[in-house]
Amino acid sequence: MPSSNTSIIYLKHPTEFPVVGEHFAAKTNNDFKPVLKDGEVLTRNLIISLDPYMRGKMRDASKKSYSPAFEIGQPLDARGIAEVIESKNEKYPKGSIIHAFIGWEEYTILPDLPTTRIIPDARESKLPLSSYVGVLGMPGLTAYSSLKDIGKPKAGETIFISAASGAVGQLAGQLAKAWGLTVIGSAGSDEKVDYLLKEVGFDHAFNYKKRTAHDALKELAPKGIDIYFENVGGETLEAALDNLNTHGRIIACGMISQYNTTNPYGIKNLMQVVSKRLTMRGFIVADFYEQYSEDFFRDVKEMLLKNEIVYRVDEVNGIQAAPEAFIGLLQGKNFGKQVVKIADL
Amino acid sequence: MPSSNTSIIYLKHPTEFPVVGEHFAAKTNNDFKPVLKDGEVLTRNLIISLDPYMRGKMRDASKKSYSPAFEIGQPLDARGIAEVIESKNEKYPKGSIIHAFIGWEEYTILPDLPTTRIIPDARESKLPLSSYVGVLGMPGLTAYSSLKDIGKPKAGETIFISAASGAVGQLAGQLAKAWGLTVIGSAGSDEKVDYLLKEVGFDHAFNYKKRTAHDALKELAPKGIDIYFENVGGETLEAALDNLNTHGRIIACGMISQYNTTNPYGIKNLMQVVSKRLTMRGFIVADFYEQYSEDFFRDVKEMLLKNEIVYRVDEVNGIQAAPEAFIGLLQGKNFGKQVVKIADL
Repeated sequence: MPSSNTSIIYLKHPTEFPVVGEHFAAKTNNDFKPVLKDGEVLTRNLIISLDPYMRGKMRDASKKSYSPAFEIGQPLDARGIAEVIESKNEKYPKGSIIHAFIGWEEYTILPDLPTTRIIPDARESKLPLSSYVGVLGMPGLTAYSSLKDIGKPKAGETIFISAASGAVGQLAGQLAKAWGLTVIGSAGSDEKVDYLLKEVGFDHAFNYKKRTAHDALKELAPKGIDIYFENVGGETLEAALDNLNTHGRIIACGMISQYNTTNPYGIKNLMQVVSKRLTMRGFIVADFYEQYSEDFFRDVKEMLLKNEIVYRVDEVNGIQAAPEAFIGLLQGKNFGKQVVKIADL
Repeated sequence: MPSSNTSIIYLKHPTEFPVVGEHFAAKTNNDFKPVLKDGEVLTRNLIISLDPYMRGKMRDASKKSYSPAFEIGQPLDARGIAEVIESKNEKYPKGSIIHAFIGWEEYTILPDLPTTRIIPDARESKLPLSSYVGVLGMPGLTAYSSLKDIGKPKAGETIFISAASGAVGQLAGQLAKAWGLTVIGSAGSDEKVDYLLKEVGFDHAFNYKKRTAHDALKELAPKGIDIYFENVGGETLEAALDNLNTHGRIIACGMISQYNTTNPYGIKNLMQVVSKRLTMRGFIVADFYEQYSEDFFRDVKEMLLKNEIVYRVDEVNGIQAAPEAFIGLLQGKNFGKQVVKIADL
């Protein structure tokens, strides 16, 4: 049994970028004596997933949004992979590997949540454990379901994906490519652009820090784009609006450029929604779970096992590294799906 | 046979509000000797409809949009009601009253267009002829079809309609009310607000020149709105985004506040589309014609004949009055559906 537990505690709502020590900080309990109630399990946490939506949970709890706010004074939570090391719940016996909402911490006393799942073949899996919080987890289902349900992609069309080397973008691009689309991506470094072009197989990619999305789309999509997979907001959204074709679709997945500022960018060309009959739609992955999760898991797992998909993960080590990694994610410093490896299996 | 014909000629593309004499002007042909080719008819024009979408036709023809640009040196065109006074087309015999795309002028030589329709009961109709370009015409179908197809209204929900006393807004509000919704409208004068509350039967209405849509919606829709019928754009759209409920719908019909400026308003809270899973969709009425026109015409005509709908028309007299009336429409000076009466039947 563990006798200490290090957790990342949520301290205060940030208005711009969160700061380590001010808004969240590591805290070690050296007198950790977990006592389980019926239905609870004690987990040894292996991996947590860091995702941009978490920035939205760093808010005053009185502001409503799709995901509950983080609680001041408590560990932040995340989708993660963990080993059950004590169990008072027969659904999750000792030794099971689970995929669950756990804390940003080494050990979690986990109540019986409907979102907890056993990963049956985890110890024998050919795929890295992090797949279950990445390409085969929430970000993967996000890409697959929203591309199908909102994007309605047709072979021959052109899609533009921002934050294209991120957790959602890199899979969205490969699915679109497999479904017969021309795929254009934007990312924030030449290294990421090279990855998209040479390893992932995007048709075109550009570094938005070196040229504007306006200029790049004019050149790379002379016939316009049909779908915009929106992860960043701001000027990139404005450029996409200008370059979308009639009846174009905007998959409003996220707007990371707008999360850490008190002075959001003003979009001046929304009239394009009227004049080009565009559809812009927001969603959360839970909306699509029932309809798409089975097909998604089957299709993408098969593509992965056949090496038809590459999926880059950015892994930092140790729970202490989580806050800086999260800030880096908000700043686009991650390269691929951001996870924190807390312990080996 | 007429020997003179006064037309409003399109002269130049405006960048802000059009100016009479600079961008369009009346011109009389005192030597009007119409000669018809096969398939053509000569119309004596009775009424033309002025609608905000026409501002979008005052553009450089090289810019694509859903409706073709007006042609420099030619009369502007409009949906209108006319009498056929000479005919070389057996579909439209002399004496028929038609609903067609005619010029902003007294007489038009009309080719055989698929959009021309005979109004069979026009001479005996209990409804004013202007109905066919208003409540029973394009603006009416716009309200009906988009409210059904994009708004997906459910009894008990709340809808907010901007430009609510206009051609589309006043019908949209009455349909929503008949379908069991709570209806809130904004308009630009106390007189219009009174009309909405006392004659049309809106639940709430406010004068956006006296209080912001932000403040008004907070008070009038404490539980939020489910549908926003968007006619104006700018700050009103921003307020609607802030006050929409989860899974809210935005019917992007028009953004008249943005048509006559080179400095459009920047919308800063589009992140609400993501966090509240909103759908914003543009359309043109032609997209819905096939699916909705029959039901629309039957339902709304019946409601009109039963006096279940009121519909205010703002009529100016004489083709010479058309340019000023159009500028007034763009400035919100009209009160009700704007038409120009050119001649009596």
